Amino acid sequence: MSSIRHITLPAGFRAAGVQCGIKASGREDLALIVGDDLVSAALMTTSNQVVGAPVLWCRRVLPAGAGRVRGIVINSGNSNVCTGRRGERDAGAMAAQAARAVGAEPEQMLVASTGIIGHLLPMAKVRRGIAAAAAALGRRDDRAVIRAIMTTDTREKSAVVRTRLGGAAVTVAGIAKGAGMIAPHLATMIAVITTDARVAPRLLGRLFRSAVAGSFNALTIDSDQSTSDTAAVFASGRAGRAIGPGPDERKFAAALAEVCGALTRAMARDGEGATRLVEVRVVGAASAADARVAAKAVADSPLVKCAVHGRDPNWGRIVMAVGKSAARVDPSRLGVKIGGVRVFARGRPAPFAAAAVRRHLGGQTVVIDVDLHLGRGAFTAYTCDLSREYITINADYHT
Amino acid sequence: MSSIRHITLPAGFRAAGVQCGIKASGREDLALIVGDDLVSAALMTTSNQVVGAPVLWCRRVLPAGAGRVRGIVINSGNSNVCTGRRGERDAGAMAAQAARAVGAEPEQMLVASTGIIGHLLPMAKVRRGIAAAAAALGRRDDRAVIRAIMTTDTREKSAVVRTRLGGAAVTVAGIAKGAGMIAPHLATMIAVITTDARVAPRLLGRLFRSAVAGSFNALTIDSDQSTSDTAAVFASGRAGRAIGPGPDERKFAAALAEVCGALTRAMARDGEGATRLVEVRVVGAASAADARVAAKAVADSPLVKCAVHGRDPNWGRIVMAVGKSAARVDPSRLGVKIGGVRVFARGRPAPFAAAAVRRHLGGQTVVIDVDLHLGRGAFTAYTCDLSREYITINADYHT
Repeated sequence: MSSIRHITLPAGFRAAGVQCGIKASGREDLALIVGDDLVSAALMTTSNQVVGAPVLWCRRVLPAGAGRVRGIVINSGNSNVCTGRRGERDAGAMAAQAARAVGAEPEQMLVASTGIIGHLLPMAKVRRGIAAAAAALGRRDDRAVIRAIMTTDTREKSAVVRTRLGGAAVTVAGIAKGAGMIAPHLATMIAVITTDARVAPRLLGRLFRSAVAGSFNALTIDSDQSTSDTAAVFASGRAGRAIGPGPDERKFAAALAEVCGALTRAMARDGEGATRLVEVRVVGAASAADARVAAKAVADSPLVKCAVHGRDPNWGRIVMAVGKSAARVDPSRLGVKIGGVRVFARGRPAPFAAAAVRRHLGGQTVVIDVDLHLGRGAFTAYTCDLSREYITINADYHT
Repeated sequence: MSSIRHITLPAGFRAAGVQCGIKASGREDLALIVGDDLVSAALMTTSNQVVGAPVLWCRRVLPAGAGRVRGIVINSGNSNVCTGRRGERDAGAMAAQAARAVGAEPEQMLVASTGIIGHLLPMAKVRRGIAAAAAALGRRDDRAVIRAIMTTDTREKSAVVRTRLGGAAVTVAGIAKGAGMIAPHLATMIAVITTDARVAPRLLGRLFRSAVAGSFNALTIDSDQSTSDTAAVFASGRAGRAIGPGPDERKFAAALAEVCGALTRAMARDGEGATRLVEVRVVGAASAADARVAAKAVADSPLVKCAVHGRDPNWGRIVMAVGKSAARVDPSRLGVKIGGVRVFARGRPAPFAAAAVRRHLGGQTVVIDVDLHLGRGAFTAYTCDLSREYITINADYHT
């Protein structure tokens, strides 16, 4: 990591990550990220019907998915899921303590927890952690913040984009954990993005939903869905004029999408047992929805992912996955490329140089292109290969 | 296997399996199963939008999914998928030759192929195989028939049920291959069922669809869907009176369902890399469709399947999978049992004897019960655990 600052690079934010003993490993496990004042905020949470207490808390704080808050308190090592009323009280207590420490109201503080489920939070440790994090807010050690939200992640994940909006330099910074899911694996993805751009909550919400649709919501490691996925963006408004319709909005949307996209690719690359990132780009679909369904079918296919792992240019499995999807498919028009090399065209195998495709499949990033030749719908899904290590991680750990 | 006859046990059928050199291994790879006369037939094929030439042929022979045919010719080692017009002509030629050999019309013969895709059938070998199988029809070596439809299956799969209908002894016999999918994995499941019961085609079609819904269509090995799945049932009508509404129909339906169910469990148990059968029984769903969706979500979850493989009583993953499904779920009512032991009740973890549950998870058959406590919808899905061997089989084979 080139700098120890990322999430606090945008003006108007402070953050800290500390160890409070939730993780048995003794690693950082509690983070606090706050604005100096109230900030515009937008939030997206898991669509799983079983959700953790922190997700319920956040939805209460921002029922419309956007509003003004001071920040977020995050712990790793315990997801506070399936913990009943007591868990809900604990989430509220975390918010209240973190808010009090920065002079805010409990309902101005979001909460996210990631880690083991079905266990009550060790609240004495959590309370000490929040106090320590609040005391360390000036320290500006953003790597400790990233580490404090990690679980089985093997790499720290952050992204920073700088742009100019209305004559002012604006920074969009993001950190994320996830896709290496931890035992028992239900609290997967957390992403926090900060910016000093001046964006009203409702606009921030709309732009964030759009950015997430093409990034976090285009990511699949194994088709399983966390009960705790939470992504939040905070805008302090310290840089430049208020963003409104026109070029400023488009540039800010692009910067936000770029940060979310970089974090998404970083999570896919660090998926459990992953050895490479796989991008599945579908074009020519009858609709955007069809493109999404087809891309996800390929990205979710264990057979495709095993083929990538084995560097096998197995177009048959890609065709199979597209065909099983609910997207409209005309087999006689279907085309597939792997690493830019045409392997299937107009519904028939195409002769190709297998060695070149195998080389591509052995690289860091594998690109699979599917053209349905039916319309203009396009979508790109992100995933990773499927390895024995995935099984080892998920079968050998005992709850 | 207790007997060398299964598929020809019902009166009025002959069958043969031979080696004709499609499989490099030199194993049996061509089977012929025919009635002595025209038989009632019902057919179900894959819902994948990309289908092989044999599936297209069968749909032409039985456009309504039921009718009268003489039988089916099956080859393994090559699925005749993505082979264009030439592939379609080859499927038709197989039907024509097999039909001619038993004195029938081409349109009275079904065709199924399983194995590698994207390669033209070696028709000279296939032709020799059909001739040899036709000559061997009297031999009554049903194990050769089973072996001739196998691909990476590690076990022969058959089931026989005897019942009495209208005072006559009736036999329902079935054979199946599948769920160990072979390179490149697109031609997965074939099942053929014979009976000497007297059932009109339309009724046979209705009863077969119902039996398949709760058996073959309740089976998932890895959520990937073949381009060649084909299941057919033939009724010779040699035993007893015609089956009509009432107890006879119910008894025959039960026998048919029992054979399909036994073959389904055998395929799940023999899934690629599988070490055990997993039954996911969902009850209390708001609707039957909801029960199906919830059961499939659990059965398809790689995290649940890894947990079973690792003998980990990980109720959290089961709850997660139910929650991510489209079925209506009230988390506060949700209950889960593993091997009959309550591990989660009314939305909360239940204390349980982990050692007993681990023992169950280490057995031959694992039963996961989910009660949504919302209504009367019920469905049982069949799958297997997910092991490193699955990755080895599917990553290390090169096309």
